Amino acid sequence: MRVIIHGVGAIGGVVGAALIEAGTEVLGIARGRMLAALQADGIRMISHRGTVELPFPCVAHPSEITFRPDDVVLLCVKGQDTAAALEDLRAAGMTDQPLFCCQNGVANERVALRYFPNVHGVTVMMPATYLEPGEVITHGAPCYGLFALGRYPGGTDAADEALKQALERANIAAFTSAEVMRTKYGKLLMNLGNIVDALLPLGADRPRFTDRLKAEATAVFEAAGIGWEDVGLDNPQRKDVMQIVEIEGTPRPGSSTRQSFARGAGSVETDYLNGEIALLGRLHGVPVPLNATLTALAAERVASGQGAGSISEDELERLFAS
Amino acid sequence: MRVIIHGVGAIGGVVGAALIEAGTEVLGIARGRMLAALQADGIRMISHRGTVELPFPCVAHPSEITFRPDDVVLLCVKGQDTAAALEDLRAAGMTDQPLFCCQNGVANERVALRYFPNVHGVTVMMPATYLEPGEVITHGAPCYGLFALGRYPGGTDAADEALKQALERANIAAFTSAEVMRTKYGKLLMNLGNIVDALLPLGADRPRFTDRLKAEATAVFEAAGIGWEDVGLDNPQRKDVMQIVEIEGTPRPGSSTRQSFARGAGSVETDYLNGEIALLGRLHGVPVPLNATLTALAAERVASGQGAGSISEDELERLFAS
Repeated sequence: MRVIIHGVGAIGGVVGAALIEAGTEVLGIARGRMLAALQADGIRMISHRGTVELPFPCVAHPSEITFRPDDVVLLCVKGQDTAAALEDLRAAGMTDQPLFCCQNGVANERVALRYFPNVHGVTVMMPATYLEPGEVITHGAPCYGLFALGRYPGGTDAADEALKQALERANIAAFTSAEVMRTKYGKLLMNLGNIVDALLPLGADRPRFTDRLKAEATAVFEAAGIGWEDVGLDNPQRKDVMQIVEIEGTPRPGSSTRQSFARGAGSVETDYLNGEIALLGRLHGVPVPLNATLTALAAERVASGQGAGSISEDELERLFAS
Repeated sequence: MRVIIHGVGAIGGVVGAALIEAGTEVLGIARGRMLAALQADGIRMISHRGTVELPFPCVAHPSEITFRPDDVVLLCVKGQDTAAALEDLRAAGMTDQPLFCCQNGVANERVALRYFPNVHGVTVMMPATYLEPGEVITHGAPCYGLFALGRYPGGTDAADEALKQALERANIAAFTSAEVMRTKYGKLLMNLGNIVDALLPLGADRPRFTDRLKAEATAVFEAAGIGWEDVGLDNPQRKDVMQIVEIEGTPRPGSSTRQSFARGAGSVETDYLNGEIALLGRLHGVPVPLNATLTALAAERVASGQGAGSISEDELERLFAS
């Protein structure tokens, strides 16, 4: 098995480095400064176990890859980049190799199934960080992370089992699930707070806002008949294998959306998090004004170049009340 | 009401020209040689009534538009360009103005509802042609075309009624439908033949292949509980208002996909036509090998630069049989 990681950021970087460390063949598809750093110096992964530096074979584009029957592809790009990534993979010769959508949100799997027959969802529980090119951090311990794997829309197969085993050899706990989207919807609930985390100053009261976003979401899940499972810190499958720990010298910089703002990434995945709730609310006739407002606000902040910590609690409360 | 037409190709061109001729305020968003031609010389519309030449106000990008509360937006770009178009419209300041998805396929409405609250589907029955920049043709008569309009996912509202009236003043027959997606699924069945039409030589036996593509599709519609209505030539709403007629000197060049190949457009919308059936088959466990094969074939032909008429009946039959 060769694992192709499309999108070497926080998640793709830690997963790739951990697999490489465990002896699995890995090939990354990266871009910009991350690509340059990986090709020059490999990857540096910081975890509770210490720091490792590893060569990380990488290309800039799928067209540089000769696909093999034993390839599996881990899609780790942000949701807004999924369709382009899939078209590139197909044009490069990928056909029925398993594709694992490791992204936040619940929309990527459906997009992928239009292009490829063997699509899997992955619920990624891993406190990973990418701020500097060539360097990734995971604050997960004892395992670096915990992944749920399964076919989309349902079921499991040998590809899930094979990836699970490779991940476990790489200190990433994994379980297969015939209803993997239930845990992805559970994770979506948690990710509704990403934009709040990103826009408020450090130290602000986040649950004050995120609780209301989640309440809208669970109401629309119920109306739509969508089942979900909590994957938060109290999840029993998570408790013993992966907790978030402190690592000296590496403070956690907040959600992936906050990291995107901090890196000036030019787009954020809010359209596929709070925007998913806006979509579901409109589809099923459930009012979702708060998630819709935050989706629009995120787009506006990216466009205007404002970023992390750019709104106060009082301003956000006024926006919620209006 | 100002009608903003995003994507001035065959459909956007005829609709825009007809509305302008009838006195409705229109603003187009066009690109490349079409934009240059429209800005230099306006639009030339050829129909059974003769040829008209009209000024067609156009911009290159939504960012050039100051949106007004009385705007309605007709999305006429190809499905593969929808997400980028929507992001551009939002960034340019569009908020809750009605958005009408005039495209083939059934996927655009769901994509749009993530970004905008007032999304409408339009089933476009109009034999329109765009081959030369600045010139569009409709072979529809006595009306230029016939449109079904309705809110997505269902219902109708005042915006449907207002657009219907504007269209009818412009010699485009229109009816509102509380279940507009039923007619869009019916049109999708017809559009499954677009890629067959594009790839076979002129004069080849098309129904031999398209009938089998449709049979796969209706089986998956049934499994998925998707209702559809025939919008072909025998549709009673269509019969008296819009038939396809000959216009001297303007032979019909075939489906929109064939026109895309002929213009060297660089991408075709097969992913949203036969690819929609591939997606639905995979979602609902119904085998759809023929539509999946043609979806992959279209992508391959675009990538390799081969085009209209590049496969023989025998070759296609072998592909269907394998």
